[in-house]
Amino acid sequence: MGEVAEVFADAAYRDAVVDLLGTLAYGELSAFLRLAGDAELAPTLTAKAALSGIAVTEFHHYELLRERLVRLAADPEEAMAPFVAAIDGFHERTAPRTWLEGLVKYYVGDGIASDFYREVSAFLDPETRDLVLGALADAGQGEFVVAEVRRAIQEEPALAGRLALWGRRLVGEALSQAQRVAADRDAFAFLLVGSGGLPGAGLTEVVHMFGRITARHTTRMESLGLSA
Amino acid sequence: MGEVAEVFADAAYRDAVVDLLGTLAYGELSAFLRLAGDAELAPTLTAKAALSGIAVTEFHHYELLRERLVRLAADPEEAMAPFVAAIDGFHERTAPRTWLEGLVKYYVGDGIASDFYREVSAFLDPETRDLVLGALADAGQGEFVVAEVRRAIQEEPALAGRLALWGRRLVGEALSQAQRVAADRDAFAFLLVGSGGLPGAGLTEVVHMFGRITARHTTRMESLGLSA
Repeated sequence: MGEVAEVFADAAYRDAVVDLLGTLAYGELSAFLRLAGDAELAPTLTAKAALSGIAVTEFHHYELLRERLVRLAADPEEAMAPFVAAIDGFHERTAPRTWLEGLVKYYVGDGIASDFYREVSAFLDPETRDLVLGALADAGQGEFVVAEVRRAIQEEPALAGRLALWGRRLVGEALSQAQRVAADRDAFAFLLVGSGGLPGAGLTEVVHMFGRITARHTTRMESLGLSA
Repeated sequence: MGEVAEVFADAAYRDAVVDLLGTLAYGELSAFLRLAGDAELAPTLTAKAALSGIAVTEFHHYELLRERLVRLAADPEEAMAPFVAAIDGFHERTAPRTWLEGLVKYYVGDGIASDFYREVSAFLDPETRDLVLGALADAGQGEFVVAEVRRAIQEEPALAGRLALWGRRLVGEALSQAQRVAADRDAFAFLLVGSGGLPGAGLTEVVHMFGRITARHTTRMESLGLSA
C-alpha cells in the first residue's frame, strides 16, 4: 500500500493503466446495474436473489478498481467516461428479453471480457496485475448459470438453437464495441504493442491471444449445451 | 450460533418472527433491485455509483435475514412470498420519474420502514432483535441524500413543493400497502398485541408507536428542506 510502483513514472504506461482500470471499472459498474435489472426477469425469488448476488459481486469489483484509480491520482469518473458510450452501446444492443437470454449474456459476455483482461494483465506490473485478476475472480457463479440453462434446454430443446444465435450476436456486438474503443484510445493499444517501461505483446502474440479467447468462448458455449 | 433461543418453542411466536423476517427480507431484496434501477436516473457516474452502493448495502441486509430464516428452518422463498404483492405494489405505484424523486423515496421510505421495524423489535427476543437492528443499520448514506436534495432545492426552489407532495404520496402508498399486509397476516399482529411467550405492545402503545413514527417522518422531511 502507500507508494505506487516505480513503473508509473512512465507517463504512457500510467495513462494506459488508467484507461484499462477505467474500462474495467465502468464495465463492472454497468454489469452490476444491468444484472440487477435482468434479475427482474427471474422466474422465482431464489433465482432473483442468485442473480442479484452475482450483481453485487460485480459492484465489489468496481469498488476495488475505483480505489486503485484514486491511488493512481486519477479521477474515477474521468477515467470511466471515455468508455461509457461503447459499454452502454453494447448493453442497449443486447438487452435480454428473457431470463435465459440474461443468463447466457452474463456467462458469455463476462467470460469473454474476463479472458481479454486476463490476457492483457500479462503485460502489467505485478501489483496492477493482481488487482485486475482479483476483480475478475468468479465466485463459482458460473455453475448456477450453467445448471439453469442446461435444465431449460433439456425441458425445451428448441431453445438451444435460439440461444446459440443469441450467443453469436453477443460476440458480434462485443467485438464491434471493442473495435470502437481500440480505435479511440491510443493508451490502450500501448499495452498490447509495448511502451517505454514494458515490452507489450507484439502482433503475432495478439493474434494468438484472440485465438485463445475464441477457443475459450467455444468451450463455454459447449458447457451451456450450445454451439458457438 | 447453532441453537435457536427457547422462545421459538412457541409456534405462534416462531411464525410471527418468520413473517417479520420474510417481509424484511423481501423488502431489502426489492429495495436493492429498485435502487439499482433508480441509479440509472443518476446525473453523474459518481452519483450512480453512490446509489448503487446504497443498493448493495440493502442486499447484504437481505443476506443476513435470509441466513436467519434458514436457521429457523424456514424456506426463505416461502417466508417472503406472502409479502411480494404488497411490496411490489408499493414500488409500482411509486416508481420515481426523476433522480430526486428516487432519492426522496429512498430516504423517506427506508426511514419509515426502519422506524416501524425498530419499534416492533422491542417485542422480540434479544437475538432476533439484534439481527433486525443490524439489518436496519444505515451506513451514513442518509447524508449523501440530504446533501443532494438540499442542493437541488437551493438551485431550483420550485422543486420543494413538488417533492413535498411526492413525500406525502409515498407515505399514503406505504400505509395502504401496510394495511393490506396487516389484514392478511395474523401472525404479524400477534407481535403487536402479544402472544404466548411475549407480552406485545397493547393498543395504547401501538397508538404511541405510530405517533413516534410520524414525528420522525416529519423530522426527516424537514432535514430535506421539505414540509411533511
